[in-house]
Amino acid sequence: MGPVRLGPGAKAALVPATVQVGAGFWGTRRKVNAHSSIPQGPGLLESAGNLNNLRVAAGAAEGAFQGAYPFVDSDVYKWLEAAAWQLAQGAPGDGGPLAADVERIVSLVADAQQPDGYLNTWFQLLKGGERYKDLRWGHELYCAGHLIQAAVAHHRATGRRQLLDVAVRFADHIDSVFGPADSGKPLDGVDGHPEVETALVELYRETGERRYLNLAGYFVDRFGHGLLGGEAYCQDRVPLREATDVEGHAVRQLYLLAAATDLATETGDAGLRAAAERLWSAMTATKTHLTGGLGAHHDEEDFGDPYELPNERAYCETCAAVASVQWSWRMALLTGEARYSDLIERTLYNGFLAGVSLDGERWLYVNPLQVRDGHTDTGGDQSARRTRWFRCACCPPNVMRLLASLAHYLAGGDAGGLQICQYVTGRYTAEGVTVRCETDYPWQGVIGLTVEEAPADRTRTLSLRIPQWCGEFRVRCADTAYDQTDAPVDDGWLRLERTWAPGDQVVLELGLEPRLTAADPRVDAVRGCVAIERGPLVYCLEQVDHPGGGLDDIVLDTTRALTVEHRPDLLGGVTTVVAAGHRRRIPDAGWWPYRSAEGAGAPPAGEPLALTAIPYYAWANRQDGSMRVWLPTS
Amino acid sequence: MGPVRLGPGAKAALVPATVQVGAGFWGTRRKVNAHSSIPQGPGLLESAGNLNNLRVAAGAAEGAFQGAYPFVDSDVYKWLEAAAWQLAQGAPGDGGPLAADVERIVSLVADAQQPDGYLNTWFQLLKGGERYKDLRWGHELYCAGHLIQAAVAHHRATGRRQLLDVAVRFADHIDSVFGPADSGKPLDGVDGHPEVETALVELYRETGERRYLNLAGYFVDRFGHGLLGGEAYCQDRVPLREATDVEGHAVRQLYLLAAATDLATETGDAGLRAAAERLWSAMTATKTHLTGGLGAHHDEEDFGDPYELPNERAYCETCAAVASVQWSWRMALLTGEARYSDLIERTLYNGFLAGVSLDGERWLYVNPLQVRDGHTDTGGDQSARRTRWFRCACCPPNVMRLLASLAHYLAGGDAGGLQICQYVTGRYTAEGVTVRCETDYPWQGVIGLTVEEAPADRTRTLSLRIPQWCGEFRVRCADTAYDQTDAPVDDGWLRLERTWAPGDQVVLELGLEPRLTAADPRVDAVRGCVAIERGPLVYCLEQVDHPGGGLDDIVLDTTRALTVEHRPDLLGGVTTVVAAGHRRRIPDAGWWPYRSAEGAGAPPAGEPLALTAIPYYAWANRQDGSMRVWLPTS
Repeated sequence: MGPVRLGPGAKAALVPATVQVGAGFWGTRRKVNAHSSIPQGPGLLESAGNLNNLRVAAGAAEGAFQGAYPFVDSDVYKWLEAAAWQLAQGAPGDGGPLAADVERIVSLVADAQQPDGYLNTWFQLLKGGERYKDLRWGHELYCAGHLIQAAVAHHRATGRRQLLDVAVRFADHIDSVFGPADSGKPLDGVDGHPEVETALVELYRETGERRYLNLAGYFVDRFGHGLLGGEAYCQDRVPLREATDVEGHAVRQLYLLAAATDLATETGDAGLRAAAERLWSAMTATKTHLTGGLGAHHDEEDFGDPYELPNERAYCETCAAVASVQWSWRMALLTGEARYSDLIERTLYNGFLAGVSLDGERWLYVNPLQVRDGHTDTGGDQSARRTRWFRCACCPPNVMRLLASLAHYLAGGDAGGLQICQYVTGRYTAEGVTVRCETDYPWQGVIGLTVEEAPADRTRTLSLRIPQWCGEFRVRCADTAYDQTDAPVDDGWLRLERTWAPGDQVVLELGLEPRLTAADPRVDAVRGCVAIERGPLVYCLEQVDHPGGGLDDIVLDTTRALTVEHRPDLLGGVTTVVAAGHRRRIPDAGWWPYRSAEGAGAPPAGEPLALTAIPYYAWANRQDGSMRVWLPTS
Repeated sequence: MGPVRLGPGAKAALVPATVQVGAGFWGTRRKVNAHSSIPQGPGLLESAGNLNNLRVAAGAAEGAFQGAYPFVDSDVYKWLEAAAWQLAQGAPGDGGPLAADVERIVSLVADAQQPDGYLNTWFQLLKGGERYKDLRWGHELYCAGHLIQAAVAHHRATGRRQLLDVAVRFADHIDSVFGPADSGKPLDGVDGHPEVETALVELYRETGERRYLNLAGYFVDRFGHGLLGGEAYCQDRVPLREATDVEGHAVRQLYLLAAATDLATETGDAGLRAAAERLWSAMTATKTHLTGGLGAHHDEEDFGDPYELPNERAYCETCAAVASVQWSWRMALLTGEARYSDLIERTLYNGFLAGVSLDGERWLYVNPLQVRDGHTDTGGDQSARRTRWFRCACCPPNVMRLLASLAHYLAGGDAGGLQICQYVTGRYTAEGVTVRCETDYPWQGVIGLTVEEAPADRTRTLSLRIPQWCGEFRVRCADTAYDQTDAPVDDGWLRLERTWAPGDQVVLELGLEPRLTAADPRVDAVRGCVAIERGPLVYCLEQVDHPGGGLDDIVLDTTRALTVEHRPDLLGGVTTVVAAGHRRRIPDAGWWPYRSAEGAGAPPAGEPLALTAIPYYAWANRQDGSMRVWLPTS
């Protein structure tokens, strides 16, 4: 059970497997989400005014609209979705307190809905009920999309229909209003922020009502025709089917692509599939930060040019990381290809997870790869310091819903058996095969798999993803042993086919030697630098670990070996990587920092310095200070 | 005659000299300004609605306010200032047509003024006469400042008082409204965009009315106390006297510093002087692009962190270059130090001049140091393509007024004689010394100076600035010859003291060997790169000169000599620098652009390629395409 449930005619290579996540790395993060982040949601939504807006819209309270944006309702819906996924797998206190919060807020939403199905408190309270007059910025269908996703989650998790009925009424209303010019419907238009499209596909999947699928298809194909003014920002410059690269606001682009992939999956639309594959490859090859982060510009929160991947001004909005996982997972289901789960892994462990503090109470909206010494922080949503909540609070509940539904993104079943995409301690089930997994990944590379259930009468294939970053691995399956030189690896998948019996064991050991990574030379921002990685984790330096100076002058010595140390005491338990380096001794340059290149070799090195790198996801959990992922080598 | 005329008690090291600019590099650029840019101003201001706003405010026309910003009046004032400086030194057609335009528009301004002196068409037409309710964004005093500067220029240039009277009435009105809490005046506040402060100092200088100087001093010291909400953006985070670095919106910071320098000059205020010197040094050492461009971020148009100097996202607003010249010139006058004119030279020839096309008809608002292959341009004000006019049209008339008053920024007189800060063909006069200068600088390094007038009864010092970039030079003065090893150079000034006679000659020859320049290693954006410079000019590559591929893969070979060629046919006549290089042959990297650093040496080199560099100021005058200043060396 999770955000994607394929329809009966879906043309997908995989169906999502059933996964129970146990203890371990993600178990810990999900526990914090369940015990800290999600329970705090109602209080934060109350104090920010989101819930009262619903009450006022319902006539149950007095007051002015609170909030700075027309999409504040969506914060409520994303929280509801997160809570629903959490309820589905056990919430603290047997789920009672959380379930009560959920039902209370579901009722607030239901009460705020207008008789014809419309619901948006910004327009109901501030705009005198005006509707669909500002599609470019109004976010009415965007909010509807999040409402629908929450309703589907609530229905799948609890079996209760109250929120689903609200969503269906709203969707029917939208379907009565929007359509092609020749449809006789009042409006031919799309929302400036894609989101309702993927939600409508899921509502079709949940209800079987094909009108929702058709409406999603209509919307997806109406972007790029100037209905929103033709701007790339809101995906209106060029039709998706003709696009050659990702562009515009990153989250908008990614939600639209998730919908296109859903449609290609349900309808077999080859043009949409080709566009999605083309754009995914272009994005990852030229517009993705090492952390999986997406979005180069603070201004417009958008993608930059190819290879424009700045460090301190990386935008890498946390919501874009969530959206990237959602889209890549749909691609993984559609195609069965491993590379989509490669990007999901990288994003989950780095660009996504950095968005929430280790205690689950503070957030990053943007996720830079560098914070300079003496950084002047402007505060606010785009701060490089963690914040309790945001004026534009889209990211926190987005993180909550992805963590609460994480089990959904980890494995799939294909015609031949079970594909394990991500390694977590827990239990995976698909196609009649159940496998128990035990691992201390990503700290240790050993992944122990035990078959608990399998059909006795036929072979099944256990497909294990060999991560794209992995150079060396070993695998033992029954009495056979392979390594990277002779294992049956097919485009990222180690395929183990046999007639499995309960108790059969597979031990996969991924080599976790720390690595130094360089970028394509066209990534100007990191020329002359390397990054430290280990397994799926990108590492960074933080100032707090390097007293006696800042990080702007740090140089990594690439000739010396990297060493690892597991530090259970540090940041909830992390494996650090220690490298050799020094600080440059830069002579006072006076008032002008540019000099003749002749003789401008490396400045004198200072005392040798041990550089202690921590996983990027754990940065900004101690004192404020500088940070950097990419380290100069001279 | 020019924008700064020191008051009788000023504590300045220099007074502006009188300079007539003849033919040559700047003569050509000023001719384009006089014949093309300035004459087109009234038509553009008419079609953008600025002039009609004034008519409507005067009750002389009907119509709605036109324009997107509350500061559109300032476009008119800056154009008037430019036109006035142009009239002062001869405009096309004996100045008749321009003078008529000026007087017509001055009358429009005068008619729009309200009886009590207030004038701002945004608030008069759109806000029902509401005043000073939105000091953070209203720009009322900002516009007043530009009105005052235009009025001072008009009075100095024509001797006519009509616009000066308007300015005085407005200034008196402002002085009656704004003051310290204990002054009994209605408002204790400052404008969110500094500008009126430096203008009020000049109005004091023009009228002798000390109230204006005091009002300027009050305003400057009220920034940084939270009156505007405490944001760095509008210079309100910290009082200038306590600031340790430039911050916030670049133009706001620079205009405020110009005012602080004016105040220090007129009042001897040591605290303001110290702040200005401290902030200038911090800015140039850590926040200035090679072109002299200022401002790192598109978002907020502000300064970034120290050494945060991106290339393709350099903001480097043209207005910030204008403001930098204005501030540095005030510092040069106050201190007599050469380094301020070093920065002025660099800014004029590069970051400033790139803001206007060679034909004077198209503009850049932002001035990036790189445009990538396949750049997606969003258009609008922040485009990397030249534009005929802007929605926010602050830059074009700012360029016009600086070019029209350029003679003012070239030389000064000190107690001992004449300081030549910038070398142009023309005639320099100060302290009884007149020197004729003939030069083909910056294409040639020879600067011939002939004394035309000098006191016969005493020595005078002719001070010649040896530019900060200059490694080798020779000078002949009468029968003495020096070079860089033995010339009497004192902190950037070559001091030649003697009793000069008409006909005496000095020949200075600055070495113009092209140079490769590297940045401080903390400037992450250009690590592993060099830039080509020659004399005061920064060079760049443009795609149009490098057929057969883009610029993202270009590598410069630093072991091969640079050669120069003067091309009278190219871009109005430029000296090109030709370097050896190649394009990398980057193997297809698949979907992920990051690789193990081991063995990630330079990719294979392609065929040798001659790289033709043109002066940066001349870029974007041919077909659209990629461009880069900083060139990778491997």
